[in-house]
Amino acid sequence: MMKETTRLTSDKTAAWLRERDDFLILTHRRPDGDALGSAAALCSALRAIGKRAYLLENPETTERYQAYVAAYLAPADVRPFTILTTDTADAGILQINAGSYVDRVDLCIDHHASNTGYAAYSCLDAGRAACGEVVYDVLMALRGEISADEATLLYVALTTDTGCFVYANVTADTFTVAGELLRAGAQYRQVNKKLFRTKSRGRMALDGALLSGLRFYHGGQVAVATVTLDLMARMGVTEDDLDDIAAIPNLAEGVLVGIVVKELSEGGCKVSVRSSPGVDSNAICQRFGGGGHPMAAGCTVDLTPEKTAEALVEAAGDALG
Amino acid sequence: MMKETTRLTSDKTAAWLRERDDFLILTHRRPDGDALGSAAALCSALRAIGKRAYLLENPETTERYQAYVAAYLAPADVRPFTILTTDTADAGILQINAGSYVDRVDLCIDHHASNTGYAAYSCLDAGRAACGEVVYDVLMALRGEISADEATLLYVALTTDTGCFVYANVTADTFTVAGELLRAGAQYRQVNKKLFRTKSRGRMALDGALLSGLRFYHGGQVAVATVTLDLMARMGVTEDDLDDIAAIPNLAEGVLVGIVVKELSEGGCKVSVRSSPGVDSNAICQRFGGGGHPMAAGCTVDLTPEKTAEALVEAAGDALG
Repeated sequence: MMKETTRLTSDKTAAWLRERDDFLILTHRRPDGDALGSAAALCSALRAIGKRAYLLENPETTERYQAYVAAYLAPADVRPFTILTTDTADAGILQINAGSYVDRVDLCIDHHASNTGYAAYSCLDAGRAACGEVVYDVLMALRGEISADEATLLYVALTTDTGCFVYANVTADTFTVAGELLRAGAQYRQVNKKLFRTKSRGRMALDGALLSGLRFYHGGQVAVATVTLDLMARMGVTEDDLDDIAAIPNLAEGVLVGIVVKELSEGGCKVSVRSSPGVDSNAICQRFGGGGHPMAAGCTVDLTPEKTAEALVEAAGDALG
Repeated sequence: MMKETTRLTSDKTAAWLRERDDFLILTHRRPDGDALGSAAALCSALRAIGKRAYLLENPETTERYQAYVAAYLAPADVRPFTILTTDTADAGILQINAGSYVDRVDLCIDHHASNTGYAAYSCLDAGRAACGEVVYDVLMALRGEISADEATLLYVALTTDTGCFVYANVTADTFTVAGELLRAGAQYRQVNKKLFRTKSRGRMALDGALLSGLRFYHGGQVAVATVTLDLMARMGVTEDDLDDIAAIPNLAEGVLVGIVVKELSEGGCKVSVRSSPGVDSNAICQRFGGGGHPMAAGCTVDLTPEKTAEALVEAAGDALG
């Protein structure tokens, strides 16, 4: 899958960065904390060694991450010479306003095994849980230290991609880097509180209703939560409050397939399916014209919430075999 | 608060342990993963250096932790010479079957600032998030390495007391130790799934009821959840299902003090208080004869759930100032 990219170690990447200037850093569509935290930390370190460096503002940046990148956004008339990307496996998924930069990425720093080698140079470590870990290595090679702000930004990166250290992608290195980030002064308590320990009151109430209303099928192996427009209105929640809601049914003991059915204002339902290893979420959703990954997929169904749930439960039963 | 105990460093503790034998390790009432994981890891390491060592079975050990301690439980006719405790701040809260051992604790390994110095010797580091971190230091001083099983047990300890690394008590050292535990072979994915990514159906329903029923006071800065015996019966949950329930009220946006009131079958209520930095949970609970840490404390109140909640809300209001 790799095109003709030149692979660089973190040391070589640091040397490569020192030789250049006028950096513009891009991230991917629907940017997450790993992409944005990595990009902002890299930008900060480049400035610290005297370079001009900016992030190209990503218009899909959600409120929760905006404060972290605000200090680094490029002016409208930015004229970069060196184009960098973080956490982006392919040029085709670069931020929607990437424009002609798509075809002239000089260096990508990434942790995706699926990286297509679209950049002239690549600093890639597919063994790391977060791109932020790779950026940490580059920053240490660049300056031998990181600032407290950079530590906070990289902490955002690490925790976003690991669910605050609970996902299966965590490695010993993830923890070791996290320890160094705290020593460097990362504001980890504020990040944890904001990203992992705060829910709107509406979301608290919605979670309450969903947990109370979970329905189980196929001997408890399939669980369904339904989010109707009426429920959302009663709980006072909007789309912005629905982050990570697809994960809820799978928390129940014994559940192999978790289904969340969300009623759409335009009619029909959006469905998220999450499954344990050995049950193919992708196959379930493909029956309804959707798809995704083996353990996480989605589809849109043009039925009422009740009928949608019925159809998905039947498909999930078939997938269980 | 400290009585006449002799403080030992981890190195001195290791030397102290080497000079003795026939160990029995006790934990506290309603033992958590930090107490039990610390005790079992210590027991394993003592056996590894040729000592006879056991855990005194703690009758309040919940199902989720039983498999971790099973290999270390003492036979009924155990005749110990050296009594150790882990994670236990005072002899008065030792496991309910501690009997006469209460008055003859030789060494306690702990991380509570409130430790009363009840043991002849104490290896205490109040700066650590988990007792398991202190035990890690002792084990490294004892043998220079830890086994994969010990790593798993200490991983249970660390994650239990930090909510899998999300609580404010985490330090850089917590992460550094966690990295070393993974390098030593800790089965962290299994632990994460079992302890942090799986809920019983009853607990799912209970969480639903608690989230839906949260009450807010003092301008939304104080939130209270009440777990009555009736609610537990209706949801079909037992003590075993209540792990980490104290964290729920603090998830709501704007809450600085979260209070969980749990009705006890013997009358009265057990209260857990969790607070943001700057609000002293320990001070709140000390007003009711309890105590703990600045951001996590508990007490028992001999009132109905409703009256208990009222009293705690008032105390929390005073603590907010």
